[in-house]
Order: sequence, then structure tokens, then C-alpha cells
Amino acid sequence: MAAVSLSVSTVKPLGDRVFVKVNAAEEKTAGGLYLPDNAKEKPQVGEVVAVGEGKIKDDGARQALDVKVGDKVLYSKYAGTDIKLGTDEYVLLSEKDILAVVS
Amino acid sequence: MAAVSLSVSTVKPLGDRVFVKVNAAEEKTAGGLYLPDNAKEKPQVGEVVAVGEGKIKDDGARQALDVKVGDKVLYSKYAGTDIKLGTDEYVLLSEKDILAVVS
Amino acid sequence: MAAVSLSVSTVKPLGDRVFVKVNAAEEKTAGGLYLPDNAKEKPQVGEVVAVGEGKIKDDGARQALDVKVGDKVLYSKYAGTDIKLGTDEYVLLSEKDILAVVS
Amino acid sequence: MAAVSLSVSTVKPLGDRVFVKVNAAEEKTAGGLYLPDNAKEKPQVGEVVAVGEGKIKDDGARQALDVKVGDKVLYSKYAGTDIKLGTDEYVLLSEKDILAVVS
Amino acid sequence: MAAVSLSVSTVKPLGDRVFVKVNAAEEKTAGGLYLPDNAKEKPQVGEVVAVGEGKIKDDGARQALDVKVGDKVLYSKYAGTDIKLGTDEYVLLSEKDILAVVS
Amino acid sequence: MAAVSLSVSTVKPLGDRVFVKVNAAEEKTAGGLYLPDNAKEKPQVGEVVAVGEGKIKDDGARQALDVKVGDKVLYSKYAGTDIKLGTDEYVLLSEKDILAVVS
Amino acid sequence: MAAVSLSVSTVKPLGDRVFVKVNAAEEKTAGGLYLPDNAKEKPQVGEVVAVGEGKIKDDGARQALDVKVGDKVLYSKYAGTDIKLGTDEYVLLSEKDILAVVS
Repeated sequence: MAAVSLSVSTVKPLGDRVFVKVNAAEEKTAGGLYLPDNAKEKPQVGEVVAVGEGKIKDDGARQALDVKVGDKVLYSKYAGTDIKLGTDEYVLLSEKDILAVVS
Repeated sequence: MAAVSLSVSTVKPLGDRVFVKVNAAEEKTAGGLYLPDNAKEKPQVGEVVAVGEGKIKDDGARQALDVKVGDKVLYSKYAGTDIKLGTDEYVLLSEKDILAVVS
Repeated sequence: MAAVSLSVSTVKPLGDRVFVKVNAAEEKTAGGLYLPDNAKEKPQVGEVVAVGEGKIKDDGARQALDVKVGDKVLYSKYAGTDIKLGTDEYVLLSEKDILAVVS
Repeated sequence: MAAVSLSVSTVKPLGDRVFVKVNAAEEKTAGGLYLPDNAKEKPQVGEVVAVGEGKIKDDGARQALDVKVGDKVLYSKYAGTDIKLGTDEYVLLSEKDILAVVS
Repeated sequence: MAAVSLSVSTVKPLGDRVFVKVNAAEEKTAGGLYLPDNAKEKPQVGEVVAVGEGKIKDDGARQALDVKVGDKVLYSKYAGTDIKLGTDEYVLLSEKDILAVVS
Repeated sequence: MAAVSLSVSTVKPLGDRVFVKVNAAEEKTAGGLYLPDNAKEKPQVGEVVAVGEGKIKDDGARQALDVKVGDKVLYSKYAGTDIKLGTDEYVLLSEKDILAVVS
Repeated sequence: MAAVSLSVSTVKPLGDRVFVKVNAAEEKTAGGLYLPDNAKEKPQVGEVVAVGEGKIKDDGARQALDVKVGDKVLYSKYAGTDIKLGTDEYVLLSEKDILAVVS
């Protein structure tokens, strides 16, 4: 198998999965979102860079996702799979692990 | 990605999620609600500041939420995801974790 | 947010939840119900003071609850969320955690 | 709330629950049922004294129970909720925890 | 409640349950079935002596069982509830815990 | 109950279960399948010697199995129930625990 | 049973399973995908070499898979069953454990 040269544009999420670029600096933003470090689920901010086509429903049609490329989203830090491309961090997660869109 | 300046109005919950401002002083209210500190689920009081559009049902329509912006609600303290905006505390939770509306 | 002055009449359970006033003296009632203190689920007696409108079924209608305000009920002591209003104890629980109506 | 004077006739099980009078002497019956004391589920014999109206099905009708008042039943000792009325022992359990009717 | 005199013919399994007489000597049968004693599920041989009427399906009809009285069956040793009538051993188990019919 | 003389032809799996003769020598086959011994699920090779009639679907019909007698299959070593007939090893497992057919 | 000579072309996955050749060198590719070694799910890159026909739906038809032979995929390292053919590593996994197609 030839080497796989991964870049953001080459990752196509399956089903209801969403590919998100992690906003690593967010925790330090003054006056902005503060993500408390306690025993509960930790939220994280990122930007959607790719979305799947949605799950296939019983009638065979796909359920389109609520989020779209460019959306800034809050998601649970413990959800999904971390991926690093060069120095940037990404996460692949199911849409159900996205808590909110922030604008 | 440009910095995200989060404020209450910029957080749009997804699906059946509800964005609630925590009523932190409530535990001290004389004669009001007392939240016992025991091994069982702990209730907490807050005010709904934003709601999702509801889950998508099998027929493709959305199931609107029972709670609306402005409702004061009782919810389980251990549910959802804590968020802090400036000095205010918020929580993002699923409507099923809301126990009751209080008026 | 203005202070929330909670009283029994202000708590409106959501969905299939039931608001029950705990009959704290019941365990001592001679000749009445005896609640054994063992490793199994513990029953508790209370009186229903408010009920939710019921869960929404697949067809969009609500499934009304079997219990109604005024019913005396047996429920599992470990279920639900304890709430105290003044010196009275209450519990918010799902109807499925109610074992029987007693009259 | 007035004191609740519980007696067998005042307990009305909800849904698919069954109210059973425990046959405490059964374990000693010579030549009869022997309930081995091992790591597996333990059976217990009792007599049905009250039954619920059955669970509500998707079409809104109730699913009547298979057992009826007067049936002697085998059930798992670890299931349900123990209740004592005077010196008699009872158990409130779901019909699914009843293994067999014995006659 | 009068004493319950249990015998094989008096036990009527509920739903999808099956009443099986354990073939205790089977493990020693030369050239026959060998039941390895390891960390996995252990099979056991027995003979069906009574069957339930089957689970009730969504349309209200019952799903008749695949096994019938007289069938010799292989089942998981760890499933079900052991019962002893005199010196004979029996087990009450769900049909789903029966692995195969042997003839 | 008369002694049960088990042989391959006498075992009839129920529902979606499959009776498989274990290919014990497979792990040593040079150049063939290598089954790594790590913390993950372990695959095992065997040959199908009997299949059930399939699970009963909601409409009452049976869902025929994908595998048939004579198929060589890969399955998870930790699934199912081991059985030994004479010196040969067999396993009774659900079709869902079969990973692939090999030819 | 005759010896089974396994090769890539002889493995036919069942249902929604996918047979993937592991791209073992991927973790070292400079500038490409970096797979962080932390407590979360670990992604892995591979190439699809065979796919099942899909799960059977309630209406009896099969749900075809989203991935096809030749697709390069990201999947969770902890999912599925490892298989080695000669010196090459493969994994048999359910399509739901495939996170994304990479091109």
C-alpha cells in the first residue's frame, strides 16, 4: 500500500461523525469560555472542518447532520478520537457528542 | 481560526440540549428549597437561557422541548457539562435530566 | 435572576415524573407497614402532590400517568431525587419507580 | 397526611407488578421443593394476593398479566421489594421475575 | 396458605421459560459429551419436562417455543434457577439459554 | 432418562446458533493464518457442522443464516460454548460471533 | 477437515464486517498522520481488502456498506480482531468502528 499523505482535506468522516479542528488556545481566552477542571465532563471548543453524510435511517434515507463545515462547536473533551496533522490537533467525534454550536 | 468570544447569546444547544444559568445562591435561600447533601442524586436550580430545536423523530420531524427560555428548572447536579462565562456558571444538559419546572 | 421561592405548588414535574411528599413517620407505625432494612430495595410510603403530563409517545400524544395527586404510594427508597421544603421532605421520581398505590 | 394503615387489601400494584405473600415455611417442607443455597438465583414460593393492570402497550391497550390472585408462584428470591405487614412477609415484584406457577 | 406439595407435574413455567430435568450423570458418560471445565460458559444436558406458552408478541399473539416436552437439550450451566424435587435436580431457564436439542 | 449418546449428527442448534468443529491445528499452519496472542479478541478457525433455523422475526418468519454446513469460518475464540465429543473439539456459537467465511 | 490455506482473497467478511490491511508504517510518516498515545481511543490507518454484504434490515434487504475495497480508512486501534497472514497484519472490524475514509 502506498504511503497515505493525510491532510485536512483528505479526511472524510463516515456516517454521523464530525471532523473538528481543536481550538487549543481557547482555555486561556480572557472573559471568554472557562472550562472548569472537575470530575464532570469537560467541554472543549473547536471548528468543524468536515462532516459525514449522516446515518442511514430505517427507510434507507440519510439523516443529515445539524452541524456544518465552519461551525464552531462545544464538545465533550473525553469524546472521540484525537488526531494530529503536523502541529494542529483534530478530533473525530459523533455528532451526539457535540453539545452546542457557538457563534 | 479566529478567537471565539463566547457570551450567553452565542451558545446554541443542539438537539434536546438545554443551556441553563445556574442559580448558585439557591442553596442558602431561607425557607426555600433545601438540597440535601447525601449519596443520592443532587438537585440544582437554574434558569433556561437557550434550548435546542429538539431531537429528530423517526418521521423526520423534530420533537419540540417541554421547557422554554425563562423557565426556572430543577435538574440533577451531576448531569450535563459545566461552563463558566466570566463569573457566571452555566450548564448544558439534556432535557431528560431536567426534573421539574418551578415557578 | 430573581430568587426562587419554592413551595409545593410551584414544582411542576416534567414528563413521567411524580412529586411525592415523604411519609417520614411511616416506619414507626405500629401494626402497619414494616420496611425491612436489608440488602434489597427499600420501599417508602408517600403522597403524590404533583404529576407530570406523561411521556410523549411515538405518535406525538402523551401517555398519561397511572397515579394522580392525592394517591398514597409505595416507592423504592433509593429512587429519585430528595428535596426539602422547610421541614418537609419530598422526592421527585419517575412513575416506573412507584411500586404500588396504597389506600 | 393522615397515617396510612396498610393491610393486604390496600396495596394495589402498578403496571406489571405482582404482590405476593411469601411462603416462609416452604424451605422446610419434607419431600417438597428444595431450594439449594448456592451462587445462582434462589427460587422462593409464594401466593399472589394482588396484581397490577399490566403494562400499557404501544397501541394504548394494557397487556394483562399471566398470573392471577390465588396463584402459587415460584420467583427469584433476589427480585422485588420485601414488605412486612404484621408478622407476614410479602414481596412486590415484576411479573417477569416470576418463574412458574405451581399447583 | 396451605402447604405446597410440589411435584414435576405441578410446575408450569411462565412465558418463554422451560423446566428441565438435569441429566446429572452425563458428565461421566464414556465416549459421549465431555463438558470442559474452563473459564467459558459450561454446557449441561437435560430433558424438557414442561414449557411455557411463549412470550406475548407486539400483536398480542404468543411466540410458541422451539423446544417441546421430551426434548433433550444442551444449556448453559450458569443459566436459570436450580430446583430440587426429592433427589432429582431440575432447572427453570429461558429458552434463549438453550443452545441445542440433542437426539 | 435414558443415557444420551451424543455424536455430531445428534446436535441440532437452536435459533441463530451454529455448531462448529474446531480446527485445532490451525495455529501451527506455516504460511497460513496466524492468530496473535494479545489482549484483543482472538480469532479461531473451524468448520460448520450444523446450523439453527434462524431467529424468528417480528413477522413470524425465520431469518435464515448466512453460513451453511461445510463453511470454514473465523470466529472469536472467547465466544460460545466449548463441547468435546471423543477427542474432537466443537463450539456452539451465535452467528453474530462469526467474523468471516474462509475458503 | 483439510488444512485451511488462508490468503487475503479467501477471507469473506460476514454482515457489516470489513477486512482491513493494517498500514503499520503509518505512525512514522513525517508530516502525515500522528496518532497520539494517550488514554483515549487510538486511531489506526489501513486499506480495505474485503467487505461483507451488509446487515439484513427488518424488510429483509441488506444495508450495503459505505466503504468499499481499496478505501483507505481510519479506525479505532482497539476495535476488531487482529489476523496475520505471513508477515502482513490485518484486522476484521465492524463498519461502525471505521471513523473516516482518507484519500
